[in-house]
Amino acid sequence: MIKTDILIIGAGPTGLFTVFEAGLLKLKCHLIDALPQPGGQCSEIYPKKPIYDIPAYPEILAGDLTERLLEQGKQFEPGFTLGERAETIEKQDDGTFIVTTNKGTKHHAPVVAIAGGLGSFEPRKPKIHNIHLYEDTGVEYMIKDPEIYRDKKVVIAGGGDSALDWSIFLTDVAKEVTLIHRRNEFRGALDSVEKVQELKNQGKINLITPAEVVGILGEDHVTGVVVEQAQHIKNEFEIECDHFVPLFGLSPKLGPIADWGLEIEKNAIKVNNALDYQTNIPGIFAIGDVNTYPGKLKLILCGFHEATLMCQAAYQIINPGKRYVLKYTTVSGIDGFDGSRKEAPKAVVKAIE
Amino acid sequence: MIKTDILIIGAGPTGLFTVFEAGLLKLKCHLIDALPQPGGQCSEIYPKKPIYDIPAYPEILAGDLTERLLEQGKQFEPGFTLGERAETIEKQDDGTFIVTTNKGTKHHAPVVAIAGGLGSFEPRKPKIHNIHLYEDTGVEYMIKDPEIYRDKKVVIAGGGDSALDWSIFLTDVAKEVTLIHRRNEFRGALDSVEKVQELKNQGKINLITPAEVVGILGEDHVTGVVVEQAQHIKNEFEIECDHFVPLFGLSPKLGPIADWGLEIEKNAIKVNNALDYQTNIPGIFAIGDVNTYPGKLKLILCGFHEATLMCQAAYQIINPGKRYVLKYTTVSGIDGFDGSRKEAPKAVVKAIE
Repeated sequence: MIKTDILIIGAGPTGLFTVFEAGLLKLKCHLIDALPQPGGQCSEIYPKKPIYDIPAYPEILAGDLTERLLEQGKQFEPGFTLGERAETIEKQDDGTFIVTTNKGTKHHAPVVAIAGGLGSFEPRKPKIHNIHLYEDTGVEYMIKDPEIYRDKKVVIAGGGDSALDWSIFLTDVAKEVTLIHRRNEFRGALDSVEKVQELKNQGKINLITPAEVVGILGEDHVTGVVVEQAQHIKNEFEIECDHFVPLFGLSPKLGPIADWGLEIEKNAIKVNNALDYQTNIPGIFAIGDVNTYPGKLKLILCGFHEATLMCQAAYQIINPGKRYVLKYTTVSGIDGFDGSRKEAPKAVVKAIE
Repeated sequence: MIKTDILIIGAGPTGLFTVFEAGLLKLKCHLIDALPQPGGQCSEIYPKKPIYDIPAYPEILAGDLTERLLEQGKQFEPGFTLGERAETIEKQDDGTFIVTTNKGTKHHAPVVAIAGGLGSFEPRKPKIHNIHLYEDTGVEYMIKDPEIYRDKKVVIAGGGDSALDWSIFLTDVAKEVTLIHRRNEFRGALDSVEKVQELKNQGKINLITPAEVVGILGEDHVTGVVVEQAQHIKNEFEIECDHFVPLFGLSPKLGPIADWGLEIEKNAIKVNNALDYQTNIPGIFAIGDVNTYPGKLKLILCGFHEATLMCQAAYQIINPGKRYVLKYTTVSGIDGFDGSRKEAPKAVVKAIE
């Protein structure tokens, strides 16, 4: 049984920074991640891509960000269970938790912080019998890099903001944009709906409603989709395209975590942002892209803040009745769990000869 | 009249990062600061000191932090009114604001963000007739660097957490610690009060209550204080010491800003942390160390988060009814107001010969 103070599920940037902030409060962390290395999507999906909105980094590669965060936390000696997925959680009589992975590794902690990031979610897929055949060859469930659609014919399906906004955005990039939705009504921001209307009138978006994509065509790559339109009579026809992008939102891929009884809203774990980012289950927090609250932005810098406030609440749970007095790192320095000490150089009084 | 989208009062790290986040939303910023250069306390008080808790910077000098933040925001061409203090604010009929400095410079903006930092506050000073003579020579109203008390005799006055915590902390540093409070009761965390009791019993803290410091002794430097103790009869005596540290809390030094009708709590500007860090006056926000809310931590990284969420609300005020679609900087790059463009290098298809 691995014992720790804060058990962090997810070793992306938010989880890694938690190690540092917890360490300042003398709390020890252990991280579980399904990926084989720390860093989350930063390491897995875009290690060589620059991020421009990490505060005080005009530009930093996602892989370097991971390295710096590991470096910043290493003196607090975090533990890692990598390549395993958190599977079950059991609340003990004393309020602590036992979390077991798919490989049977057991972890025991008074506080659990879910920092699973966007990796905890997966796109909702339309029920089209042959769609899985094209998942690397023309079907994308989310738009990661709009450039791949440059001068291509794209069919987008969906009726929400995501479908509306990307249809608008891609009119400047793609050769042809078709938007298909099973109703005439779209559920989105007024100005997005109006903009699509305008682009349709200008012939820049080919709008087909109420309709559904029911089949995909192509040998090695998508070359078209089969559309079923149901106005008065049912009517099936084909549209030529290079990409089919169904944007039906995300559903939690929390897997077994979804059975833990956490309140889910907008496909994310609902937390109390007015205080400490705790979930509806006392002792379980959700920080970073995995959580939601009014005004939530899925940005790494927000995860840093959430992790920091969460650690204060964790301190209270682990040290009931005690008060932690915030001291600035500039003033008090940092004592690592490994015996290391970092501090500002002391002033000296010395004559200059 | 200087016109801008977001008028930021305070050019410390939080104010500077606001420039960048606002720029991503195509909003322009102008900053007012009483100091002659940007950076706030980071530049003014400790430019050569390392900070250890900026995310992904295991160590960064405060002056370098300022440089990086200026660099990150410069493409969004912020304006600066430096060496002037925001003096009056007038709300216009259209909901916008005119802010005038002590030198008469006028600024007009639909959104005002107060990012005045701790510089907006000053310590409460005890009423001792000669105290101003010792302000650089043995009297300190806040403890910035505990090392200056090493092997010295220190008299602390106050009855709150700050007086309790620093008395405890300094027993390991100073030669002698005396704590003076005008009541027998202290208002602080239970474990701090108990710890002081214990240290008093061990003879490590010299506790004098109910008593007040009424005079300061010394020629060029503090050599002692005059204490008036009022148990049954009044009784005046002297204590030898090198430092006198009255810790009576902070009071807002917001100056004229205090007359703007903002709700003040715990010597800070109260904001709605459950949404967008707006004050009780619509259109005026407070971000960074100048604000307070449940669980507030006065950390630079929290100011970064608050600034980012605030910019979203500012966008709504400035563009009513429009929706901003968050795009990751990694995906969409950054377009500066100066015509510059930053973006991830495009992938190329090229044979390796």
